[in-house]
Amino acid sequence: MSEILVVGSLAYDSIETPRGKVERALGGSANYFSLAASLFAPVRVVGVVGQDYAPGDYEILRSRNVDTTGLTTVPGQTFHWSGAYKEDMNEAITKATELNVFEKFDPVLPAHYQDSKFVFLANIAPELQTKVLQQVKAPLFVGMDTMNFWISSQLPSLKKVLAKVDIVLINEGEAKQLTGTRNAIAAARLVLEMGPKAVVIKRGEYGFVMCTREQGYFILPAFPIPEVVDPTGAGDTFAGGFFGSLASLNRAPTVADLQQACVQGSILASFTIQDFGVKALAATTRAQLQHRVDHYKKVVATHTLLQ
Amino acid sequence: MSEILVVGSLAYDSIETPRGKVERALGGSANYFSLAASLFAPVRVVGVVGQDYAPGDYEILRSRNVDTTGLTTVPGQTFHWSGAYKEDMNEAITKATELNVFEKFDPVLPAHYQDSKFVFLANIAPELQTKVLQQVKAPLFVGMDTMNFWISSQLPSLKKVLAKVDIVLINEGEAKQLTGTRNAIAAARLVLEMGPKAVVIKRGEYGFVMCTREQGYFILPAFPIPEVVDPTGAGDTFAGGFFGSLASLNRAPTVADLQQACVQGSILASFTIQDFGVKALAATTRAQLQHRVDHYKKVVATHTLLQ
Repeated sequence: MSEILVVGSLAYDSIETPRGKVERALGGSANYFSLAASLFAPVRVVGVVGQDYAPGDYEILRSRNVDTTGLTTVPGQTFHWSGAYKEDMNEAITKATELNVFEKFDPVLPAHYQDSKFVFLANIAPELQTKVLQQVKAPLFVGMDTMNFWISSQLPSLKKVLAKVDIVLINEGEAKQLTGTRNAIAAARLVLEMGPKAVVIKRGEYGFVMCTREQGYFILPAFPIPEVVDPTGAGDTFAGGFFGSLASLNRAPTVADLQQACVQGSILASFTIQDFGVKALAATTRAQLQHRVDHYKKVVATHTLLQ
Repeated sequence: MSEILVVGSLAYDSIETPRGKVERALGGSANYFSLAASLFAPVRVVGVVGQDYAPGDYEILRSRNVDTTGLTTVPGQTFHWSGAYKEDMNEAITKATELNVFEKFDPVLPAHYQDSKFVFLANIAPELQTKVLQQVKAPLFVGMDTMNFWISSQLPSLKKVLAKVDIVLINEGEAKQLTGTRNAIAAARLVLEMGPKAVVIKRGEYGFVMCTREQGYFILPAFPIPEVVDPTGAGDTFAGGFFGSLASLNRAPTVADLQQACVQGSILASFTIQDFGVKALAATTRAQLQHRVDHYKKVVATHTLLQ
């Protein structure tokens, strides 16, 4: 089993959905990712928080044996995102992005992080993603995410990161924005032209599209959930389950490994959206995940399709 | 192999999409449905056209051996729909719906239609759907479609039809409108409470959700198409391929039959959207369809999921 290194945000999120609202709930890509990935493999996290970060919020990672040596606390406020979801629960409307302590973040990897084999550069500034990647000695498999904020403000830096990773996990709206197309199938191919060997486009309640240079498209629906409470973190959960699944195999991923990882990540995300913030994800067990995976096989009725 | 009876519109459609526009292209639910279903089984069509209906437009059905005895030509203009698709190719924006000859249509089934076993009530006024169904002596399996126009204007009549059919095929936006929910998974269950034993929610580029009382959800993505030219008729093509697949089995459909039918219908619709109107569908062969079905099994990678 390999260790997974993740760099991303630790945040407080203020979220409003048709099902309710929360103020300053624990969130951030690194938190969602780490909680998800640590169900499968050891996780090392790099990030920065402010002096307002509650002691109990470190504990949630440590209770999962996530290595938090790479977390630094600095003067100032923790990253804060404020957003809402209207009728379309697949697309967040950002009200405010307060980078706060992330503005001057200069990530330095602890020595023992530098041999990490699986690396995920979650959704933070492309230059920070690059800085982290440069400090990893011999990564086996590197993935990244990004968002509209960086696509519109830092495209040249972003494209440099894209050229260095093995896989991009990105949501559908952002994949279209990045590639200037209105079709997710076309967007997937265009992302591959930017460098990575594989791309996963996350489609919210509709599931995902993976496209690999080696075998083309792999597309499946989301696990059916009749009521979404809060979609925040679903994409980071997907990425965490995806990388966890890969790292637990402890080898250079094959396309079949990537497919299996997509299914694990996608189904794990179906837990996250059933409550606000990290609450539902933090309470999810491997046994619960496996139960949904087994049910999912009936939902996509693989036996029928093999006839 | 059983005969399929379909009642629906024969129309001229004026359509604008990001890929171009057409004026008065041949369309209508009965045309799309019949072209699709006749790839699998004999089709009998009931409908009405105006004096402006071009002789060559009858031929397109007759060349597929569709029984057009039930088509009547009356004074006046053929049904005309005018609509557009913007960035979201999954949802049509209706500019005008001119019912024309459909306003006074009183469908009378030719005697030999009355023993039809498979019956599809395509998207027309609920009272016309009822009138047709009443004239079928012993239907084995009945399906229906509907649209926002009837949901908002004739809900009581529509609910009467819903209570009499075995399956509803409806698009996602209309399923949500009909059930007053924002979630397709929840909507599927609510449609079943209205009477039918099964429902298929068509999600455009995202595929479909079927829900049966017997086995719950069956969900799959659409066949990947990198450029959609015109989504018009995709839903009717789905229904046609779906009913064609069932009728070719010539028995009371099992859930596995319905699943197979969804795959056939969904993949057949992937041809329709590659050109304006019925053009691409009319040129599609069973061999071409089978080729995509074979490829589709790799896209949904059933072998991986069975591990």
